[in-house]
Amino acid sequence: MDVPALVAQARAGRPRAVARLISLVENASPLLRETMAALAPHTGHAYVIGLTGPPGVGKSTATSALVGAYRRAGRRVGVLAVDPSSPFSGGALLGDRVRMAEHAGDPGVYIRSMASRGHLGGLAWAAPQAVRVLDAAGCDVVLVETVGVGQSEVDVAAQADSTVVLVAPGMGDGIQAAKAGILEIGDVFVVNKADREGASDTLRELNHMLGLGAPRSAGDWRPAVVGAVAVRGEGIDEVVEALGRHRAWLEERGELAARRLRRAAREVETIALTALRGRIAALHGDRRLTALAGEVARGGLDPYGAADRLVAAVTGG
Amino acid sequence: MDVPALVAQARAGRPRAVARLISLVENASPLLRETMAALAPHTGHAYVIGLTGPPGVGKSTATSALVGAYRRAGRRVGVLAVDPSSPFSGGALLGDRVRMAEHAGDPGVYIRSMASRGHLGGLAWAAPQAVRVLDAAGCDVVLVETVGVGQSEVDVAAQADSTVVLVAPGMGDGIQAAKAGILEIGDVFVVNKADREGASDTLRELNHMLGLGAPRSAGDWRPAVVGAVAVRGEGIDEVVEALGRHRAWLEERGELAARRLRRAAREVETIALTALRGRIAALHGDRRLTALAGEVARGGLDPYGAADRLVAAVTGG
Repeated sequence: MDVPALVAQARAGRPRAVARLISLVENASPLLRETMAALAPHTGHAYVIGLTGPPGVGKSTATSALVGAYRRAGRRVGVLAVDPSSPFSGGALLGDRVRMAEHAGDPGVYIRSMASRGHLGGLAWAAPQAVRVLDAAGCDVVLVETVGVGQSEVDVAAQADSTVVLVAPGMGDGIQAAKAGILEIGDVFVVNKADREGASDTLRELNHMLGLGAPRSAGDWRPAVVGAVAVRGEGIDEVVEALGRHRAWLEERGELAARRLRRAAREVETIALTALRGRIAALHGDRRLTALAGEVARGGLDPYGAADRLVAAVTGG
Repeated sequence: MDVPALVAQARAGRPRAVARLISLVENASPLLRETMAALAPHTGHAYVIGLTGPPGVGKSTATSALVGAYRRAGRRVGVLAVDPSSPFSGGALLGDRVRMAEHAGDPGVYIRSMASRGHLGGLAWAAPQAVRVLDAAGCDVVLVETVGVGQSEVDVAAQADSTVVLVAPGMGDGIQAAKAGILEIGDVFVVNKADREGASDTLRELNHMLGLGAPRSAGDWRPAVVGAVAVRGEGIDEVVEALGRHRAWLEERGELAARRLRRAAREVETIALTALRGRIAALHGDRRLTALAGEVARGGLDPYGAADRLVAAVTGG
């Protein structure tokens, strides 16, 4: 495969080339290094929006509505739908992807699902690389929608320029239980299905909870809370507007550059960690590891002592 | 804190000492190495049973019923209830722990919840160490119940001598979607709430799915499928019997020793990886990482190239 040619085609807006590059990421291809090096100079343009929330809240529908809104504004849009890692809900939620079908024929939209299974290093490693592909391919906006409920999926959604958290009426208990997790990462909160009973309670509860917590300084971003009925497109312009305000706020304070620096640092760390994990995995079946494990299983050595020797073997220390 | 004295007290059956040792694990205490080294010679006795399944299936009730059954057989029992890492279901499921209250006054039972949040290396790292504490404290059986639905929790449940997977009637779709994940790890399947409508369908479906897959050789373990109503104690003796057969099968073939060797190898790998991750984390705020991340954010360097330099810094290469 000719990586420079593929990158050139992707930059020229050829959907097949974009798809093949993302497949390289998904399959952890040996060509990935060369690919990422070729893409690097063309990245940094896309505005990355993370979307997360509990199952059934309408994430896919909201994502599709946001795609429509950005398209009407003339933006090129990439969508990365990160599928759940939960072994219990498995592929069941993938059917939701069909809701995106309305954008399937639009040359200004790339839509891609990514599975989280089987990745060395998981989502944390692969999703940012796929975002780089969409960025280099000329997307103005990249929406990263995570379908699952696990910590790793929330982490992926939080690795964005702006993060949208969706909730639905009657999920108050869930919000309460999880406030430490999701209230912290949301820049914009969307109460979807706002025509349902309990919507005003959820809006009020959410506003209340966001007002609590550590006292903010005057210049801090106060997360926006928007009611929406994504399936009818209601409230979507307000979500886009709130995202625009958040972006302006980030840019004014130099916080956008700071977020991107942190994101790049985390990305580099994750790849480095994956490389080290690979070195350890390469010892599987290795006599040293088997011998150490045997001593631990017999109680002759504790696992920390054994791990010390393994680390020394891996780092050449 | 006097670690040798604490270990001696734990081995003498003092619950407070056991609790303090598990707290050392949970808090990743600096005394952990010394503790694990002191415990190592006393480990390897306990039979470790993992329990997992989707939310609402009655895991806590089933665990409690199993504790009762093993206690009636005169066994000392440890229970490690690993709490969910999901930011969305959060602490909501912790209330289930009260179902264990019936065993609270029994000196032959240790029950401990462990949170998965905030751990460097997560559950994969901490749970096996807590199992070691219960093992060294003289438990004949250790039940590791995972409350969540994430891959990491399934992994924890699978790191056992025998793994019990619970399902409930009407969860057919979930089983279908997830068969790759949960059908592989179960040695004993329990259809709980077997008095409910659809139970016979679920039993049949489960038996059918377990009969599919790769052709087994004659000596392979055919997972047991048991119907139960854990809340009334029905079917629990059958579960215990199935676990006994599985254990006998493992021992006959030397597979128990092989499983424990694999488990120890994985434990050592996980600790080694956590140590390497710690070295990377120690670079946070380090000039090298900030400088590398800055180059990546500007597009001057791709994240793989940056990671190479970071790995070299960590391993002294």
